[in-house]
Amino acid sequence: MNRESFAAGERLVSPAYVRQGCEARRSHEHLIRLLLEKGKCPEDGWDESTLELFLHELAIMDSNNFLGNCGVGEREGRVASALVARRHYRFIHGIGRSGDISAVQPKAAGSSLLNKITNSLVLDIIKLAGVPTVTNCFVVPMATGMSLTLCFLTLRHKRPKAKYIIWPRIDQKSCFKSMITAGFEPVVIENVLEGDELRTDLKAVEAKVRELGPDSILCVHSTTSCFAPRVPDRLEELAVICANYGIPHIVNNAYGVQSSKCMHLIQQGARVGRIDAFVQSLDKNFMVPVGGAIIAGFNDSFIQEISKMYPGRASASPSLDVLITLLSLGSNGYKKLLKERKEMFSYLSSQLKKLSENYNERLLHTPHNPISLAVTLKTLGEHQDRAITQLGSMLFTRQVSGARVVPLGSVQTVSGHTFRGFMSHANHYPCSYLNAAAAIGMKTQDVDLFMKRLDKCLKIVRKEQNKESNASGVDNYDKTEDVGIEEMALKLDNVLLDTYQNSS
Amino acid sequence: MNRESFAAGERLVSPAYVRQGCEARRSHEHLIRLLLEKGKCPEDGWDESTLELFLHELAIMDSNNFLGNCGVGEREGRVASALVARRHYRFIHGIGRSGDISAVQPKAAGSSLLNKITNSLVLDIIKLAGVPTVTNCFVVPMATGMSLTLCFLTLRHKRPKAKYIIWPRIDQKSCFKSMITAGFEPVVIENVLEGDELRTDLKAVEAKVRELGPDSILCVHSTTSCFAPRVPDRLEELAVICANYGIPHIVNNAYGVQSSKCMHLIQQGARVGRIDAFVQSLDKNFMVPVGGAIIAGFNDSFIQEISKMYPGRASASPSLDVLITLLSLGSNGYKKLLKERKEMFSYLSSQLKKLSENYNERLLHTPHNPISLAVTLKTLGEHQDRAITQLGSMLFTRQVSGARVVPLGSVQTVSGHTFRGFMSHANHYPCSYLNAAAAIGMKTQDVDLFMKRLDKCLKIVRKEQNKESNASGVDNYDKTEDVGIEEMALKLDNVLLDTYQNSS
Amino acid sequence: MNRESFAAGERLVSPAYVRQGCEARRSHEHLIRLLLEKGKCPEDGWDESTLELFLHELAIMDSNNFLGNCGVGEREGRVASALVARRHYRFIHGIGRSGDISAVQPKAAGSSLLNKITNSLVLDIIKLAGVPTVTNCFVVPMATGMSLTLCFLTLRHKRPKAKYIIWPRIDQKSCFKSMITAGFEPVVIENVLEGDELRTDLKAVEAKVRELGPDSILCVHSTTSCFAPRVPDRLEELAVICANYGIPHIVNNAYGVQSSKCMHLIQQGARVGRIDAFVQSLDKNFMVPVGGAIIAGFNDSFIQEISKMYPGRASASPSLDVLITLLSLGSNGYKKLLKERKEMFSYLSSQLKKLSENYNERLLHTPHNPISLAVTLKTLGEHQDRAITQLGSMLFTRQVSGARVVPLGSVQTVSGHTFRGFMSHANHYPCSYLNAAAAIGMKTQDVDLFMKRLDKCLKIVRKEQNKESNASGVDNYDKTEDVGIEEMALKLDNVLLDTYQNSS
Amino acid sequence: MNRESFAAGERLVSPAYVRQGCEARRSHEHLIRLLLEKGKCPEDGWDESTLELFLHELAIMDSNNFLGNCGVGEREGRVASALVARRHYRFIHGIGRSGDISAVQPKAAGSSLLNKITNSLVLDIIKLAGVPTVTNCFVVPMATGMSLTLCFLTLRHKRPKAKYIIWPRIDQKSCFKSMITAGFEPVVIENVLEGDELRTDLKAVEAKVRELGPDSILCVHSTTSCFAPRVPDRLEELAVICANYGIPHIVNNAYGVQSSKCMHLIQQGARVGRIDAFVQSLDKNFMVPVGGAIIAGFNDSFIQEISKMYPGRASASPSLDVLITLLSLGSNGYKKLLKERKEMFSYLSSQLKKLSENYNERLLHTPHNPISLAVTLKTLGEHQDRAITQLGSMLFTRQVSGARVVPLGSVQTVSGHTFRGFMSHANHYPCSYLNAAAAIGMKTQDVDLFMKRLDKCLKIVRKEQNKESNASGVDNYDKTEDVGIEEMALKLDNVLLDTYQNSS
Repeated sequence: MNRESFAAGERLVSPAYVRQGCEARRSHEHLIRLLLEKGKCPEDGWDESTLELFLHELAIMDSNNFLGNCGVGEREGRVASALVARRHYRFIHGIGRSGDISAVQPKAAGSSLLNKITNSLVLDIIKLAGVPTVTNCFVVPMATGMSLTLCFLTLRHKRPKAKYIIWPRIDQKSCFKSMITAGFEPVVIENVLEGDELRTDLKAVEAKVRELGPDSILCVHSTTSCFAPRVPDRLEELAVICANYGIPHIVNNAYGVQSSKCMHLIQQGARVGRIDAFVQSLDKNFMVPVGGAIIAGFNDSFIQEISKMYPGRASASPSLDVLITLLSLGSNGYKKLLKERKEMFSYLSSQLKKLSENYNERLLHTPHNPISLAVTLKTLGEHQDRAITQLGSMLFTRQVSGARVVPLGSVQTVSGHTFRGFMSHANHYPCSYLNAAAAIGMKTQDVDLFMKRLDKCLKIVRKEQNKESNASGVDNYDKTEDVGIEEMALKLDNVLLDTYQNSS
Repeated sequence: MNRESFAAGERLVSPAYVRQGCEARRSHEHLIRLLLEKGKCPEDGWDESTLELFLHELAIMDSNNFLGNCGVGEREGRVASALVARRHYRFIHGIGRSGDISAVQPKAAGSSLLNKITNSLVLDIIKLAGVPTVTNCFVVPMATGMSLTLCFLTLRHKRPKAKYIIWPRIDQKSCFKSMITAGFEPVVIENVLEGDELRTDLKAVEAKVRELGPDSILCVHSTTSCFAPRVPDRLEELAVICANYGIPHIVNNAYGVQSSKCMHLIQQGARVGRIDAFVQSLDKNFMVPVGGAIIAGFNDSFIQEISKMYPGRASASPSLDVLITLLSLGSNGYKKLLKERKEMFSYLSSQLKKLSENYNERLLHTPHNPISLAVTLKTLGEHQDRAITQLGSMLFTRQVSGARVVPLGSVQTVSGHTFRGFMSHANHYPCSYLNAAAAIGMKTQDVDLFMKRLDKCLKIVRKEQNKESNASGVDNYDKTEDVGIEEMALKLDNVLLDTYQNSS
Repeated sequence: MNRESFAAGERLVSPAYVRQGCEARRSHEHLIRLLLEKGKCPEDGWDESTLELFLHELAIMDSNNFLGNCGVGEREGRVASALVARRHYRFIHGIGRSGDISAVQPKAAGSSLLNKITNSLVLDIIKLAGVPTVTNCFVVPMATGMSLTLCFLTLRHKRPKAKYIIWPRIDQKSCFKSMITAGFEPVVIENVLEGDELRTDLKAVEAKVRELGPDSILCVHSTTSCFAPRVPDRLEELAVICANYGIPHIVNNAYGVQSSKCMHLIQQGARVGRIDAFVQSLDKNFMVPVGGAIIAGFNDSFIQEISKMYPGRASASPSLDVLITLLSLGSNGYKKLLKERKEMFSYLSSQLKKLSENYNERLLHTPHNPISLAVTLKTLGEHQDRAITQLGSMLFTRQVSGARVVPLGSVQTVSGHTFRGFMSHANHYPCSYLNAAAAIGMKTQDVDLFMKRLDKCLKIVRKEQNKESNASGVDNYDKTEDVGIEEMALKLDNVLLDTYQNSS
Repeated sequence: MNRESFAAGERLVSPAYVRQGCEARRSHEHLIRLLLEKGKCPEDGWDESTLELFLHELAIMDSNNFLGNCGVGEREGRVASALVARRHYRFIHGIGRSGDISAVQPKAAGSSLLNKITNSLVLDIIKLAGVPTVTNCFVVPMATGMSLTLCFLTLRHKRPKAKYIIWPRIDQKSCFKSMITAGFEPVVIENVLEGDELRTDLKAVEAKVRELGPDSILCVHSTTSCFAPRVPDRLEELAVICANYGIPHIVNNAYGVQSSKCMHLIQQGARVGRIDAFVQSLDKNFMVPVGGAIIAGFNDSFIQEISKMYPGRASASPSLDVLITLLSLGSNGYKKLLKERKEMFSYLSSQLKKLSENYNERLLHTPHNPISLAVTLKTLGEHQDRAITQLGSMLFTRQVSGARVVPLGSVQTVSGHTFRGFMSHANHYPCSYLNAAAAIGMKTQDVDLFMKRLDKCLKIVRKEQNKESNASGVDNYDKTEDVGIEEMALKLDNVLLDTYQNSS
């Protein structure tokens, strides 16, 4: 509403009240102005009404929402379904232009602003989360793996002779495939066992660099966040090696933004050595749907080069999600989530320790891993392997999601490369184990339910191993709570046992 | 509601009415069952209530929506913002697994079903639109360019010696960059002028294949939908060359699904020769937001290979959009849109012909291009180039989007390759021109407004060229209609003239 | 966004594009300004984005949406559920103040504007629909019956001696109860049969006025829209009687806005005689949910008196619905609906005529009823009454809603008054019949499905009467269409027969 | 989705995962079943996804959502605007039938269930809130005042000779008007001053009953929740008088559900004497938008009689709001809100006490009022009245809503009856004062902001009274916080002073 509209409003109802309303409107506008001027995440989260006003104002700056627009091109932001238009707040043109995912679209000033502001907010949050010297970043509507691929493809043009990527082993398919897809040959560096932890074999890395020659190496591809007992790579030392040999360094920081330790490693690596880009998932760090990642770095022009490698426009959907989320939370809200996660990690850790001791198992000592934990599975009887698989399946049917059992000796071939001891990040880890993680957004209730159900599943599995019947196991279980889930689970247990392999 | 709920309902209100309601519910369920069983686009579009019921039913099959779920993994589908959760209908887990974008997620049966069904529906529509022998396809949440890149990266593994991609020239940056990003060297084949049309130089293609040797060639990368006076490539003949020399063939069918001619070319190419994959945009063909593409082909296992190249999970958002859209429209609704587009093309064509003759210009004769049209701009006076740029700018400020002026002699360097006559698909096209297209969803009103505004802009530009004042030009214009737009435009004209280059 | 925000935006993306977006925004603002200044329904319906912008702008003028508000009263517009807040666009304060439903609320300038504008728009539409001399009206969140009660309660204060309301009979309970609830004694004037039509008995009215004495009569309570074969009351003549005897006149125009004939009667009545207020349903005339009515009249101060009789605030929900609806439709959209309804009436009429003749029945000749039609049911065999009831039930189970069978001789007592021939508006109408109406929003498809199902039900009923089995009746029915419905219906038929009485 | 759909789903993705999803669905269904079977508010609030599933399931039982429906009546639940349909979750038919607002609609089994369940839930909550012996209640889409009117109109039929309503004075217009609108003569019983409190004058009530004679009295109309220093009426004693003299007793319990004290009074009144109905606001007790009330009582058939007095259907909107709210909160959530309110009342009380003493004012001692508080305004200088008005205006411009200043000696005439000392519930209350209340949903932040702003306004008003300039007053104010509001307020102060009277 403009001045004339307010004047007309004053004639319809009392001027005093309309003026009060008009003044109140300025508070919303003030927040919007601050955001656009500073490009920082507001400290306090925005009210839903400010947020929707802002999105609405941006959307009507896009040509598909012009009232007088006539479109005679091949891509006019027309939408067939009103449901679809609404769920995107009428942002239809996506982000970027054919040449560059960060470029401004003449047809879509609003979407372009949305894109710029989102990137700016996300940069602010990365600084706040522990990497204050980051200089540029952008949201890309692809998951972490494909985003890593994009980084590698960009480096190819700078290092035409390179064929290899040095990669301290981490058993996650998409990490490995990101290199394969980009057309490079991963050089797997096995981890070394230090106490219970699996850590980067720095000597092996340097030896490999010398062996292959720096020019034949596209980059070192290291990892922060990972499942215990693997711990984040020794980024500082890797970064120094990279600097010394003039090799680029790309860090997979998938869910590391939520951990100050992971972020600190990146900051330190960049300070003392070389990190060209670090890539993180949107969904895992910002509690939004799967589908976006942030590519960030310390060299403005390199990050721009990556953004120019994305051919064509892209979905604005992940940017929109993270924008809504950060404006709703504010930086204070996000910090609070980080703090709560840390507390949950301690809680989960102490609970798992207690439970494991009841069963003569042990919480692995992995102090360098700030997110994931592992509990040994050594005492499940003779049919150990079957029992471990059964445990995994039972947890699944009891609606425990994300717990992962890792039996010994699993072998898997991914894109032609054979991994022994797959899932354990090592050819021969000493024991089987179970993983659980304290990720952002976890609640006390998650931990408590998990403990109760794990306890129960362990009881049943052990009894079965001791030739006792499943049924009697259930009878002894305290049926007063969690009964619905148990009933459901019993129906599914047999069906799923065969199917279930690993549900990561 | 289950049987017990209905029984309880019958006690609260009359059994007769509840039973009637319960029966009515079956009509919705029946449609859902048909969809799941047949995997085809329903003929008649679904009611919004059936659609939302279906999405709701799918969403509660995902673990993040389990009422008793406890999550102890690193990715649990938690959402910080209720607005975000709602706009995604609570589908948070995305699609695919680390190894394969088409794989099923144990944590997310609902999202997995959504993904399967969407791909199945889209396959059905591609058949219906003119490629009945297509065997497999999948929606990928990346724009056309990046999807082409993914195809090239997949081919790399099958053709390790290949360095070149044969590419009949089309002046669109993302097409060119898709090859550069994949790490290949595009071999540009200039088009030949036949009448007004720019067509594939088949001899040059074959000569190049021989010169470089088939093994050094990754693929031929051809194009259907394009701006006039370029016309769709001679797919049949290219496909035969590819078959003869054993070279893969990837077709950029960006906005070709909407045209039976483009689809027919693909069908024929596959019949008589070789087409490995054809890639089309979701937004341009299905009136959804920018951000997705369909990769389709005739060899099931090759398409699966591509889907396995995408490392990691991906956004479900484009799949959700196209699913909602197709279920809303039904195949009849989509066919109707195709039919209307064809009619709009004729209408636009005849109107442009008439207008151009009034100004002693000419509608270029490009009968092979079923979507885009071009009108010469030869008579704008001495300062021809400036006038053409001004015309483009004026159309932009008058909220004509998608019209594109193409001056002579523009030179542009993209990723190190210099294009003369850029935007015109030829080094030396005979004349400057203006493009307009009849794309899916266009309305009579779009054409009529465009004609009025173009007429007006041409008048003004000519007068200015004849040293007459802008102001008097406006005076003579019939102010009774379209006045608001004109007022706005006058404010912006001077500001934009400098800025405006090309707003495709 | 204010000037500073746009300036900041220009620094983030190109000034030219932001300015274009900013100009485009003015088109929306312009529409809003016009609405507020003129208070008329726009000719062309608004875009959803303009509409939502407008509602958003209004809502942030209410104190519950002030960012800095602190509430220390007993009614602060707090909302516990975000779903509820959103579905009301954050309008929480309702309309009116304790003294007056049309009064302005200091705490809620936005809701107050919403209320004023809605009333203004609705007034505009009533004029357009055929009562150009109406002077005031307001939306009240009560159905027609309770709104009539409010009118009667208002009149009580002006006519302290009055005890009776003169009421030409119409067999709809809520009409009758509206008088009972207000505490008055309805004086029922039986209709006279003219041809097939039941019309107002003017002589009986005047005789009754004389008999009881004008002072003892609160008002005449007449009706326009009604089920055939009753037709709208003779408003002109009634209005003259009222004027002559100084008796107020309240018209129940429940669903009469959709018919130019009903509206014309009111306009004429007011011109030649006396009409104090006329009351119409929101849902039946404007295709919004049940729950609101419009009280309108020709004397500004009397309408204000009524609005001041409503003690306390009231729901803004019906006002919001009709506002959204009218702004979406525009006056042109509403006129189109009126025109289509008229055409549907003709179509329904001709189809019913044809069908009834096939069965030796007759479409009653009721030219004064512009909305409802009646077809005789004379030939259903010996067990006529049972057959009629069965026919009604069968139509219901076949998802024909709104069709009404009227058997002879039904007697019903409502609030102590016994109506013979209830539902037929007369003690002894000559025959049983079936009603169907062509109301606003009806589609050709409704008529066609109705005809098909009615045809089929008549067939079955007759056969059953002729001792033939139900099953064979079905066998002969053309199963190729409408099969799903028929299957459902067969399941329900027996269950419902007993239950079903009348489903108006 | 039915069994066949799940089976089809199992063929598309893994049976194990689909079965898991299908089992998970049962948790939602289980909650729905419990609700329908028990009719009680669930202890724990429902998830949004269960809630929306439930509403969706109900909605598709209404005929307007039948896929095969054809409508040939005058009211078919058609909706012109998709926005409107969606905001009502496609419940269009409202609640009730012409005869009875609680009746079941054949056309709308879903809406009918919604209505029944809502009434059942609300009854459950009233019991829980302190009136365990309540037997029946229903939600009516009218505010408290009009709902009281409906009660009085119902009583009229049982007490044809009655003309008066005995009414212990409370200065709220809608209470008074509810009797006037119903056509009765309120007999105002002035309150008596006990300490600071204004309490029911029982002797005057009984004297009046004797004077007028029980038969001429429709009912006693008492009040619980009210502004201090008035306190809830002595319900127990009034109920005994009513029982003794055979007079009905209607209690206005407007915002009393939130206070266990008010509810206890009603429970006790009904136990020892006579209470026929008690009426409460939906918005004030359940944090929903304005527009609904609950009519409750101890005699099932009397409450049914009232529901049968409402002529015609009614809006389902208030029922839907309260249903969504209660299912979201659960009874535990609602109890938590009640507990927090009580705490806020103590906090507000102690803060007001402290502040008032700083200014030599006094918190009135009103221990019987559990919601509202009053602080004297005695020391504002010579121009006391002007200062009090100014204080009210200043609070308003500083976005303090709901605070109410009550000057001495205000006289107002409502519907012909003159109230001296209007707003203070007494002809001559000893002093001016300011009201503030702790209502459900209030937050600590509300109290703190209120205290800060009140402190500041008092400072300014006093200074002005002491001939010091406004400007300097502002200078001394601690500008570090709350500055935005103050800036806005200064702009409005002068404008509003004249306008502002009382903004209750």
